Parts: sequence; structure tokens; C-alpha cells
Amino acid sequence: MKIKTVILGASGYTGAEILRFALLHPHVEITALSAESKAGMHMQNVFPHLYGVDLPILQKIDEIDFSDIAAVFCALPHGTTQKVILQLYQTHQSLKIIDLSADFRLKDVDEYQRWYGDIHHAKQIQQHAVYGVTELNRDSIKQNRLVANPGCYPTTAQLPLIPLIREGLVSADDIIIDSKSGVSGAGRAPKQATLYCEIAESFNAYGLEGHRHSAEMQEQFDMAVKGNDSVQFHFVPHLIPTKRGILSTIHCKSNGDNSIAKMRDYLTDFYQNDAFVHILPETINAPKTADVLGSNQCRIALYPSPINGRVLIISVIDNLVKGASGQAIQNFNVMFDLPETTGLQNLPIFP
Amino acid sequence: MKIKTVILGASGYTGAEILRFALLHPHVEITALSAESKAGMHMQNVFPHLYGVDLPILQKIDEIDFSDIAAVFCALPHGTTQKVILQLYQTHQSLKIIDLSADFRLKDVDEYQRWYGDIHHAKQIQQHAVYGVTELNRDSIKQNRLVANPGCYPTTAQLPLIPLIREGLVSADDIIIDSKSGVSGAGRAPKQATLYCEIAESFNAYGLEGHRHSAEMQEQFDMAVKGNDSVQFHFVPHLIPTKRGILSTIHCKSNGDNSIAKMRDYLTDFYQNDAFVHILPETINAPKTADVLGSNQCRIALYPSPINGRVLIISVIDNLVKGASGQAIQNFNVMFDLPETTGLQNLPIFP
Amino acid sequence: MKIKTVILGASGYTGAEILRFALLHPHVEITALSAESKAGMHMQNVFPHLYGVDLPILQKIDEIDFSDIAAVFCALPHGTTQKVILQLYQTHQSLKIIDLSADFRLKDVDEYQRWYGDIHHAKQIQQHAVYGVTELNRDSIKQNRLVANPGCYPTTAQLPLIPLIREGLVSADDIIIDSKSGVSGAGRAPKQATLYCEIAESFNAYGLEGHRHSAEMQEQFDMAVKGNDSVQFHFVPHLIPTKRGILSTIHCKSNGDNSIAKMRDYLTDFYQNDAFVHILPETINAPKTADVLGSNQCRIALYPSPINGRVLIISVIDNLVKGASGQAIQNFNVMFDLPETTGLQNLPIFP
Amino acid sequence: MKIKTVILGASGYTGAEILRFALLHPHVEITALSAESKAGMHMQNVFPHLYGVDLPILQKIDEIDFSDIAAVFCALPHGTTQKVILQLYQTHQSLKIIDLSADFRLKDVDEYQRWYGDIHHAKQIQQHAVYGVTELNRDSIKQNRLVANPGCYPTTAQLPLIPLIREGLVSADDIIIDSKSGVSGAGRAPKQATLYCEIAESFNAYGLEGHRHSAEMQEQFDMAVKGNDSVQFHFVPHLIPTKRGILSTIHCKSNGDNSIAKMRDYLTDFYQNDAFVHILPETINAPKTADVLGSNQCRIALYPSPINGRVLIISVIDNLVKGASGQAIQNFNVMFDLPETTGLQNLPIFP
Repeated sequence: MKIKTVILGASGYTGAEILRFALLHPHVEITALSAESKAGMHMQNVFPHLYGVDLPILQKIDEIDFSDIAAVFCALPHGTTQKVILQLYQTHQSLKIIDLSADFRLKDVDEYQRWYGDIHHAKQIQQHAVYGVTELNRDSIKQNRLVANPGCYPTTAQLPLIPLIREGLVSADDIIIDSKSGVSGAGRAPKQATLYCEIAESFNAYGLEGHRHSAEMQEQFDMAVKGNDSVQFHFVPHLIPTKRGILSTIHCKSNGDNSIAKMRDYLTDFYQNDAFVHILPETINAPKTADVLGSNQCRIALYPSPINGRVLIISVIDNLVKGASGQAIQNFNVMFDLPETTGLQNLPIFP
Repeated sequence: MKIKTVILGASGYTGAEILRFALLHPHVEITALSAESKAGMHMQNVFPHLYGVDLPILQKIDEIDFSDIAAVFCALPHGTTQKVILQLYQTHQSLKIIDLSADFRLKDVDEYQRWYGDIHHAKQIQQHAVYGVTELNRDSIKQNRLVANPGCYPTTAQLPLIPLIREGLVSADDIIIDSKSGVSGAGRAPKQATLYCEIAESFNAYGLEGHRHSAEMQEQFDMAVKGNDSVQFHFVPHLIPTKRGILSTIHCKSNGDNSIAKMRDYLTDFYQNDAFVHILPETINAPKTADVLGSNQCRIALYPSPINGRVLIISVIDNLVKGASGQAIQNFNVMFDLPETTGLQNLPIFP
Repeated sequence: MKIKTVILGASGYTGAEILRFALLHPHVEITALSAESKAGMHMQNVFPHLYGVDLPILQKIDEIDFSDIAAVFCALPHGTTQKVILQLYQTHQSLKIIDLSADFRLKDVDEYQRWYGDIHHAKQIQQHAVYGVTELNRDSIKQNRLVANPGCYPTTAQLPLIPLIREGLVSADDIIIDSKSGVSGAGRAPKQATLYCEIAESFNAYGLEGHRHSAEMQEQFDMAVKGNDSVQFHFVPHLIPTKRGILSTIHCKSNGDNSIAKMRDYLTDFYQNDAFVHILPETINAPKTADVLGSNQCRIALYPSPINGRVLIISVIDNLVKGASGQAIQNFNVMFDLPETTGLQNLPIFP
Repeated sequence: MKIKTVILGASGYTGAEILRFALLHPHVEITALSAESKAGMHMQNVFPHLYGVDLPILQKIDEIDFSDIAAVFCALPHGTTQKVILQLYQTHQSLKIIDLSADFRLKDVDEYQRWYGDIHHAKQIQQHAVYGVTELNRDSIKQNRLVANPGCYPTTAQLPLIPLIREGLVSADDIIIDSKSGVSGAGRAPKQATLYCEIAESFNAYGLEGHRHSAEMQEQFDMAVKGNDSVQFHFVPHLIPTKRGILSTIHCKSNGDNSIAKMRDYLTDFYQNDAFVHILPETINAPKTADVLGSNQCRIALYPSPINGRVLIISVIDNLVKGASGQAIQNFNVMFDLPETTGLQNLPIFP
């Protein structure tokens, strides 16, 4: 069985990364690729590492015939995405869409407007979109045809925190998410700030006035917490001179007198059947981003704090894989009732 | 005026970095250099970047004649240091010693033994050692002849926190110091963990069972806090793929209802006459480690938190300069009544 | 069909890289793994990226039962290798061995002794070893049971040069091979020279007194050249701050008045059925090492020179894949009559 | 004595690097800084590492009063430069100009047009410009008031080759200059090709259709060679993932039977009084770019080749220092009769 698949916005890093998995996926057939400004080009001229790979020529979205397409990965910039997806969603009733942009992640369209600076143009389908941290929302993903693939940072924070918040094991009023990310999350568009000479041998915090990924974390955390509480957290992202990788250092408080062992056991149990989320036992060294590079894994470890009642959680992923394209493939698998690991079995690449 | 100066342990990174400043310093005369296992070698064969520089040949410490020496920079490994300094301190009454090891940083010798695994062998002079964050302890440094140059991480944390703790502006019971460091702090001895292939394109937290630098922070924080309180803090270091640079992201609480503006103003005022510590105004972008690379600067910025009562402080230095050799030169200047910036006026190097 | 396979010396970078391919290979069953000094350890404690992968515990070679083993990848240090392989080769008549060390690459055992500093201890099987640049020696590889997997640098040089030398298209008396390599080729043993702080933001030539890889190139070039001539070439390796990748810039002379187009056409034709060797057409941008990262590809491009009669050839590989473990798997496939690309179909990883 | 100095084009990397030296230079007074698109800005907002440094606000060139200015460093893009300098040169008769662009490097204006794509608009002063490899042209630099600071690559190649060509010690018909450079030479303007994610963990050759720096090398080599010969050479640049540093590996032929020792001795003698050019003795390890990082040094080493008659020369500099801004300061010193090392005495920074 081959599923006819289109990638919209194939000329960015996440587009290329979807291809890396899709081309080894036994059930994906890449039928069309879009890139507005590069329409007419071969992918190998956009991404030289794809030289010699047999792929459709890049097209404008308007030129693509979606009539027999079953799946769309949408890696377009936010804003643009809404209109494209609205039209596809309404016109092609059986099309399954995995959107990697931020456009359908927030249920609250006012929040969308606040963080993304424009009113939302596809409110009518916003409620149909499922927020797609696969392990946390698998059933809904299976039953819907529009998945909002989550942000990279939020994936690292939600995988450990959502189960603990739901279960009332962490205190909801003081969570610090000190996150560090490689540069690929900033995309391939040329900017002075992401030039090699600006990034190498340096690192820094940024987004200190507030970062967009806070919004989707807030919404998901608030859905997880019992009652009408709103979770109070501070998300502080940092830029690190690597291409890939996110590590979130989460400083939180145990709720009541739950021990760290109880929290670790709970998470271990929660993820026991998940192929990609690993709760590290106490005896294993702290995870490095290189440990998961190129793979769809998330590794989570818990440590005690010398501050009374505090717990430290560390969570690492490859931002382009579990934080974007890998999780998109994982959601695709869930939506098409395939084994969740299909096409994603590769080991991390090291060194 | 030339001050006859010896560097002990000149074959490590901090030794070389002292030389970078000392050789442009108008009042330093390098009289001898030691390196036990490399005795007899020219520095240019240990550090090729020093090719052609006229320097004494490396000696064993025992071979050095200290009779007319006025100053010693000691960059030996901890443990070894104590015995060497004890002997020098007692035999040469006018010798001024700046020790870059951890051996004289802790007043509490039991704490020393706990963290460094051996009893302290120079207890009799431990009380004479001044802890040398220059800006915080200038008067004592001037009046003593043994300075314990502080650790790199502690420098980034103490420069913003000690004045705020002393003044009661931050809460002492919940301070999170999430620090990130380049690799040079790990030294030049070959270890698998600091090989290029293990470090590049990766990052991680470490020392999660407790890091030695916690001990000197604890002692200094506790001296700063009013009354008999002990400051509760969690120091979490991370290893980042750069050669130099430390950035500490400090998540703390305002004490009472002191505003962030008040804290920023207090620190600005506190450091107004200091050449190397810059409290950034609100309008300036968040500091990057590259902003201070190669210089003796510490830059500190404060930001509000969405969590009630919390404040974010960011502090950056070059770990080999303000975190080690630069601050050592600065302390030397203070001890010899020279202008504090002598030999340290160079700008950061960028890119 | 599963082929029972052992990896000797599994605790080095090439050992781990063989596993990355072997674990997705449909016909490889990893039966045992050796690492003398780490015997008894789990691979996940040696290579954290392998956490959770079901693998045999590391053993000493002596502890391994080879009775039903069909294949051995040998990634031991040179010297050690000979004795181990001699014994295996003689005792297990049907065992197929792919050796990644240098021990069986040189037919001339005196050359071995000259470059590797010790007499050769397995001369009796030296003549049975096939030099394993797969594309150049496929038939012999298929018919023998001991393959000497070639060095990483030699692979980049031989793939373009051997066919051109055989065909008399390049002049044999003046070939300059200016090669650049990432650091992983130096292995995982701790050395000062390969520490992050020594490598990052620097590059240099090395091996200027002569590099061991010259010896195997000399032997292979001389076998390729017509008559009794010896090819005169100068191999100059450089160390570049990346983990992976080799790029050889080959400055050579056209033999007679053969045009560059003729040379390019000849190579294109020569490799037309090879999945991993790509002769780039004139219209494609110069290859970067990142273009092949993580894949078994070699990309080769030819350019004119402003010097009369000269031609420039550029050849890139991932040193750990086509330069080591990938080519080892490729040779395994040939030896076991499997499609050559089995287990090696993954795309390069970018960025 | 303070020399009133203007930097035109101060918002690029070379502009910032001139400042790093100028601000410690006892005889430079920075009177004005230009940057057309950033006029009105403070330098600390363009280059955060300059925070707190007292500098003139950026202006448009037209706004600058040159009436009492003695020196101009011009770091404008080529093309623009000509018109600005023509006007300054003609209007201010005593103004000394050091131009870091390519505009006045080529005596042959047709060659300029060929490589830079536009006719030369300042032909009338082209002949007055002195090509400024300081050590090779010191007397002319001293006597003129317009210096064309050489390209970074050409500096590495000319320092070893020009004396050898002049003296007839190398053969003029077959010189291969295989050069490797860090990324800062590409400047600070955002381009996809110089993004961190495109550069890190990769390297490649480029400019294979011909690189502009060939033109100035050709002209200078041809002036050096005896008679009317034209030197035949092939310059092949490579991009390496570092911020700074150029290493040129020069494969050339001894002319006649001159030994490598004779060539090394000749160069050693030639540069014996030069502070910045070091001909390394045979016993010293091959130079790394890190050995000269941040300094104005050029280090040159010679090695034998296994190819009959060939010699290998390796030459390293920091491209932003000896390859640009440092050499500009050095030329400034010569033009103003100051000791050549003034402001340039700093050691390389390592690690």
C-alpha cells in the first residue's frame, strides 16, 4: 500500500527532513512538492544532499492536483498556512493533513492573534485541529484529519510535564523551563543573527520579552491541570551553537510530598509502551542532545534538588525530528493506522 | 616599575591566558614558569601560539629561586596547590600569591574535604586567604597577600547575587542558577568526554549529583545573607560546544515587593565605578557570551518573569578571563596598588 | 535469512557506526560484540546513543564462541588485528572477515613494517586479503573471505584516480592529493590533539613527514598503472573542525591531450551502475562534505585548471561511512551475494 | 601625538576589527565612523561587544567633515569605494588612505572590469595606489598616500612566494595554491550559504570557475618574476567551518636544483627583521590557524615532497588581522612613520 503524499513548503529544513524519513517509509509515495519561490526547480538544486534522488519537481501550490492525494505535510510559514489548509480541508474531505506551522496549535484564536500578530483566517476549522504530541493525544489524532504538529520546545516540556500535571504530581504555580536549542529551528532564510560567524563560539538567552511557544504550552498545561487553575511557568529559551538538538532543564516543585522516585515511576509507567519516549533510570548518565541526534527519541531524566521540594527534569530531543518532521511522520502513521515506528526506526547518528 | 612574577602550572589553559595579559602588562616581568611534567621545555613547544615569544624555560617548582620574586600566580591542580603555597607563604613573607585553584576558596575545611576528597593540608593559612571576586572584596584583597581566585561559575552568580542578597532584595530560599559553560573550563588534560567528536553538535547538563562550585557559592551566599540563614539554591551546570564563555540564567524571587527596576538600579549603582561589570539597561539586547570573549567583562541583565514575584537575571563572562586569568590579573593589580584595568583594557574579540 | 555476525572492537566510532547500519539491515544478526577493556559492559554505557537497543553485552574476544558465526567485522587497532584474524581465518574455514584496520591492506609486508613499525605477524594470509574499495574490486571481494577495508583518505583518492590511471587518462608522475578530514578518523581514545578546545576554530596540515595512508595508495596506484611505472604523488592531509567528512582536492595532469570532458565522461560511464559513486555533471555545484553526511556516497567532480594540462578533481565522502563502516557493510553485502545497497539506503542527513 | 582617523564602512567585520586595534593604539583618535544604512546608530547596537565603548555615532559619509582628518580606513564594498576615495584623494591633499576593498589592488583596469563586472571609475588615481603587503612593499607604502590593502588569500600566498619568485627559487610555470579559509571573509551580510546550519560540520571548495583573488595574485606574481614571463598558478579556495583563519597549502617546484633548505634559509633571511612574518624552523610543528588567531602574524613552513623537484609551503594567517584589518593598521603605522608593531603587539588568543 502506498499513500499518495504531498509536502507543501518542501524547501525548508523541516521539508527536507520529512523527505529523509518519507523516502525510506514503505507506505509513502511522494506525489508532489511545493515551494512558491523555487517552483520549477529540482530539489537537488535546493538541497544538494538530495542529488540523484528521484523526486517531483517543485511546484506552486496552485499547480498541484490534490484529487487523488491522501496526505499532506504542510511546512509553510505561519499565516500563509491557514488559508491553504482551510481550502484543502474543505475541498478534499478525505485528505489527512499534518501541519508543522503554528497556525492550528492554539484553540484560542485571540491568543493566536496576540502572539502571531494577525487575525486567524481559518477559525471555522481551528476546533477540528488536534494538537499533535503523539503520545499524549494519540486517540484524537487517529480520529481526526487535521493535526497541528507541536512546536519543538513545547514537545520537550510537555512530554514530561503533562502527565505529571494531569496526575497532580507537580505543583502548577512555579515551573521554570530553561530550554536550550540548536539553530536549525530558526530556519533557512538568511538572517544576520543566524550566520555562522554570529553563532559559533557563542550562546545566549533570547525571547525574554515572551516567546510564542509559551502560548501553546500554556494552553496545553491548562487543559492538563485539574480544575480551572492556570499553570504558572516561565519559559526561557537559549540559542546554542549546534545545528540540531533541544534540551529543556525543567525546575519544578513536587506537589505535596511526592518523592522523585514516585514521579519517575509514574512517567516510566506512563510511557512504558512508547517506542520513542524514554524515562531514564537513575543509573544512566544525564542525556546529551547528541544521544538522540537524527532520531525520533525523547529522553527524560529526573534529579533531586538541594532546594526543599524541588525536582529537576531534563528532556532532550532532536528539534527537527521529534520536534518537527519525525513527529509529523509519527502522526501520519497514527492517522493511517500504521505501526507508529514505521519509517522511524533509525538509530541516532553518533558521532 | 617591574614586578618580578612567577607562574606555577604554566602549561594549562589558564597559565597561557595569564601570559596573554601579563606580556602586555607594563609592570609584570615573567621571571619563571613552572610545569612539573614539562620541565625543560620551551613554552612554544607546549603552546605553539607562543612561538617566538621570549619566555623562561619551564622548570620544576623546586628549581625556582623565589628570593627576589614579588608575585606568584598559581595555576596548579587542587591538592598539590596547598602544599606549595603553604611553603611559599611561610618562607617568603612579602610574596603576594594569587591562587587559581580551589584550595583556598573555602573557609570551612570540612567542606573542602567533603567536595575535594582529601583533608586540607594548609589549614593554618586557610583563614588568611581572601576570596577574590575583585569587585566584592577589593579592600580585603588589597590588605592580604594570599588571594583565592574564585571559580568561573561562582563569579557569574556572585556578581549579581551577592549585592542583592546583602541588601535583602532577593529571597534567599529559592534561587536557581542554570549555568552554561564552554569546554575550556575542563582543562587541557586528555579526556574522552572533552574530545571534539564528543562535544561538537551536542550539549548536556552535568554534575547533577552536586558540583564543587556549589560549595564556594554556598559559603559566600551565606556570608552575604542577613542573620544566620543559609541560602537555598540549586546550581545546574551545562556543557556547551564552545571553547570559552559562561552564561548563568538565574531564576530568583524578589524579596517582598521590590520591583525589577529597583533591583536593576541598585546593581547599576553598586557597580557604577567598576570598569568590568556592566549592568545592562533595559533597552539593550540580551548579552551573548561572544560579547565578552577575550575580555575581563561581566555583563548582567535583569528581566521580568510571568511567574508572580520571580525575576530573571542573566550574567555572562569569558570563563578564562573574568572567570580565571583576567580576574587573577585584576587581583594582582589591586594587591600592588595599580589601576585595576592595567593590562586588561583589550576589547572583546568579535567575530 | 539472518547472517550471524560479530563485531570485534565495538567500542570505537567505527564499531558504533557499523551497528547503525547493521541494526536496520534485514540480514544481519549481531551475535556478539567485543571490547577488551570494556568487557562486561552494556553498549549503552559505552555509547549512550544506543540506550535501550537490545544488544549483546561486550565480551573479550576469547570469550566469544565463533562456531556458528558467518561474518566478522574487525575494528581493532592495527597490530592486534593480525593475530586475531590469523587465528580466526585458519580455524573457521567458512568465516567471512571484513577488517577495518590497516593490517591487511598492504601486500608488501616490508612496507607494512616501515609504516606501522612492527613486523607483520600474519604473512601467510596476507596474500589472501582483498583490498576492498568495493567498486574497484568487486569480483575479488565476492570470491574471497578476507577483505581489507581501505583507509578513508585512500577511498576518496582511489575512486576517481584508479580508473583514470588504469585507462591512462592521467599522468602518473605528478599527482597532488590535498585532503581535508574531520576529526572522527582520529578515533575515540583521549588525546590532547583532538580535544574540542584544540580543534574548534582551527585547522592545519599534518603528517607532513609522510602519512601511513600513502602506502596503500602507492600500492594500489602502482597496480593500476600500465607497465612497471611507479606513480609519483604527494598526499597532504589536513585536519578540519568537523566530526565527519573527507574532501580530497586532487591536482593532476591530463595524460596527453585528453580533455576534461573525456575524463568526466569516462568516469561517468565507469560508475554508471554504481549506487554510491556519483560523478557530478558540470552544471552541479561543487560537492560539500555535508552533502554526503551519514550516507555511503562518494561524489566526484572535475574542473579545469588555468595551468596548462592540469585538471582538478574533487572527491567527498563521509569518512565513517564510505570511508569505513558503510563500505564495510557494502563489502559484506558483496561477500554474501546480497544487493549492494542493502541496509545502506538512507539519505544523507542535512542540516 | 594623536592622528585623527575616520573609518568608512565601520559596520562590517573588518570595520569592527580595525577598532579592536585602533582603540589600544596610542596614536589613533577615532574621529568619525560611517555606515550608510546604519547612520544614526551607536556602534554598540551594531556590535554588542562594543557596549560601553565611547565612540562617535555612525554617520553617512556625506555628513563627515574631513577637513582636519589625517587618515582614513576604507572598509566599503568594492565599486562604491572608488568614487568615495577618488573624491577624498583629490580634495584632501594630505589625507592618507588605507583601502581594504579590492578597488585599487589591480593596476590593470581591464582586469578589474573583468573580475568585478564594472568599469573602473577612478582610473586617474589607480596608478598612485600602492599594493600593500607591508613587508614586500614597505618603501612605496611610506611614500604614498593611498594604499590598497591586499586580499586575505593573496597575503598568505605572496608572503612566501613573492621573495622566492623574485629570487628565481621557485618555478613559475606550475604553482598550486590550495587555500582554506574561515567564514568571516564572506562578511556580515545575511546569505543562505553562510548560515550556521549550512557551514557547521561541512567544508567544500568553491570559486572553481575562477576567484577574484587570482587577479591580484597574478599581477603581483608577474611583477615579481624575471623577464616578461607570466606565472602559471591555480588558486583553489575552500570554505572551512571556523570564523577566522586562512591556511594556504602551496604545492610548487624548486627552480633548478635549489634545495628546500636553501629556500627556507632565503625566506628566513628575507624576513629576519620583520616582527609579524615567521619562517618556522624544521623542528617546529606544522602551523595551525589557531596559532595566530587574533594576531597580525603570518607563519610559514616548508616541507619536502615525495614528487621529484616539488616543495610544499604552508602559510597561515588570521584573515581578519594580517589578511585585513591588522595589516591595515600596520600600513597605517608605516605611512605615519610609527614603529610597525604599534597597537599590534597582542599575542594570539588560545584556546
